[in-house]
Amino acid sequence: MSLPAEFALIARHFAPLAGEGALGLTDDAALLDPPPGRTLVLAADAMVAGVHFLPEDPPDTIGRKLLRTNLSDLAAMGAEPVGYLLTVALPRGTPEAWLAAFSAGLAADQAAFGLRLLGGDTVSTPGPACLSLTILGLVPPGQALLRRGARAGDTLWVSGTIGDGALGLRVGQGRLPADPDGHLQRRYRLPEPRLALGQALRGVARAAMDVSDGLLQDCGHLCRLAGCGAEIAAGAIPLSPAARAALDADPALLGTIAGGGDDYELLFAAAPEAEAAVRAAAAASGIPVTRIGRFTEGPPSVTLRDEAGRDITPPTLGWSHV
Amino acid sequence: MSLPAEFALIARHFAPLAGEGALGLTDDAALLDPPPGRTLVLAADAMVAGVHFLPEDPPDTIGRKLLRTNLSDLAAMGAEPVGYLLTVALPRGTPEAWLAAFSAGLAADQAAFGLRLLGGDTVSTPGPACLSLTILGLVPPGQALLRRGARAGDTLWVSGTIGDGALGLRVGQGRLPADPDGHLQRRYRLPEPRLALGQALRGVARAAMDVSDGLLQDCGHLCRLAGCGAEIAAGAIPLSPAARAALDADPALLGTIAGGGDDYELLFAAAPEAEAAVRAAAAASGIPVTRIGRFTEGPPSVTLRDEAGRDITPPTLGWSHV
Repeated sequence: MSLPAEFALIARHFAPLAGEGALGLTDDAALLDPPPGRTLVLAADAMVAGVHFLPEDPPDTIGRKLLRTNLSDLAAMGAEPVGYLLTVALPRGTPEAWLAAFSAGLAADQAAFGLRLLGGDTVSTPGPACLSLTILGLVPPGQALLRRGARAGDTLWVSGTIGDGALGLRVGQGRLPADPDGHLQRRYRLPEPRLALGQALRGVARAAMDVSDGLLQDCGHLCRLAGCGAEIAAGAIPLSPAARAALDADPALLGTIAGGGDDYELLFAAAPEAEAAVRAAAAASGIPVTRIGRFTEGPPSVTLRDEAGRDITPPTLGWSHV
Repeated sequence: MSLPAEFALIARHFAPLAGEGALGLTDDAALLDPPPGRTLVLAADAMVAGVHFLPEDPPDTIGRKLLRTNLSDLAAMGAEPVGYLLTVALPRGTPEAWLAAFSAGLAADQAAFGLRLLGGDTVSTPGPACLSLTILGLVPPGQALLRRGARAGDTLWVSGTIGDGALGLRVGQGRLPADPDGHLQRRYRLPEPRLALGQALRGVARAAMDVSDGLLQDCGHLCRLAGCGAEIAAGAIPLSPAARAALDADPALLGTIAGGGDDYELLFAAAPEAEAAVRAAAAASGIPVTRIGRFTEGPPSVTLRDEAGRDITPPTLGWSHV
């Protein structure tokens, strides 16, 4: 009595990723005993081939990117990862080698970030590959970082560098000359979830989120929930050397950098007097942070200013998935 | 500062479904404080238009079907539902009326089954609609029903009736004359998760699962995990009047009934001496159960027998999604 094809695929490529409570992926559901006195943090993201990743992207980076975008949501809440559930809808005839590389990428990141596969589903689709991942994390009660809570007068901070992902996408599409050392494309394919920084910012940041849809649009979410405005100094936005070189060559790329998305950096508000605590959190987590602006009185809006203080906000603040 | 289209859609159609801890779907993740001393039960299922549902199915039943197939996984574990996360990849230009009906169906079932939306993601796809749902439930520690645990000599039981879903799919495809009162199509579109029965079977059933891929194939899973065989009496398989009429008209439909799937009934093993306890659990939950066979010594296999004891097992035991 042999296993049908679906279950053989799961046994070969996904069961090795399953951890405690996953029951070897052979049951109807997984079991998880959360440690007492912790709050569960739950997020889900979907990715479609041709929309959220390029079909020709290396398969080992595709699952990792989805996992990392979800890990970035946990980072934005100040949570620690525990496990995930994954559903994959794949075109019929997807080669086994693709699945093997896809799951090998997941295995590497599970080890790197300390979490396990708990369950999922594998189905076929007549359309493009469609992946969905639900992640579970833990945070001490009452200590989750939320998007709401910024106040006029707060300082605005961002981790790492902005724009690499959006520029890396353009490189992959052939719309930008290749970056010499592959930094931009690597950042597009494999974002770096800022888990240690998010955890260190618990009790320090007043509001936080991760930048996925573009710095300006995402800053708008913080403003909308806080009922205030924000001003960002274009010259303060932290750039990688590769992004700096691209911007120097074509100043019009500022819109791509500030509005393009796929950054997965943390964007957060802090009280002006918390600057030393913010810098200590960054030092403790080994992740650089940059003060890029401040929250202002007034209706929700985000204004990008040049060094002379002129409003250079692009007409569209970001992009929407639908 | 207006909301981008994606967020406006979420605010209009999904935020009203969001419950406690979902933070209005405006944050990076949801927060959930599980009650102390309970084990979390987690499952995820995906559905693709044209594969798992018919594109012309009423949109209010599509979300409900996905929710109910996941609730059926909780039922199979003896768990009570808590909440769910939902990702939807929709073709560009999906009408708002479709989304409104889709979410209205979910709202009705949330109320009926006592759970809430905790989070998710909405993206666009150039392909068919692709939906993924992760469900969370709770069970007392050590009391989850598992697929493993059947023993040779155990009795084999199933809830409700078998075959309606697979026949209902054929009706929808025009491959079977329409059922007069729509029972078969209704069962295909809206399975009935057997939550109360699953909970009542805690401590009674030795192994359990829900029938989604076909009675015979799914029974094979119980056998494989138990290292034993099973015999099913074809004449004992419980049928609705509509399925009975279809089978009487075309005896070859037995293969569809026993192998077709989409039943979402509970299939479970019990010790021979537990028959009274099984019947008491069925009576307490108001869900009929039928004894359809028994587990046997020997290697994993499932044998379907007619009333004369002849082996009438179809050559393929079920179907696989890949």
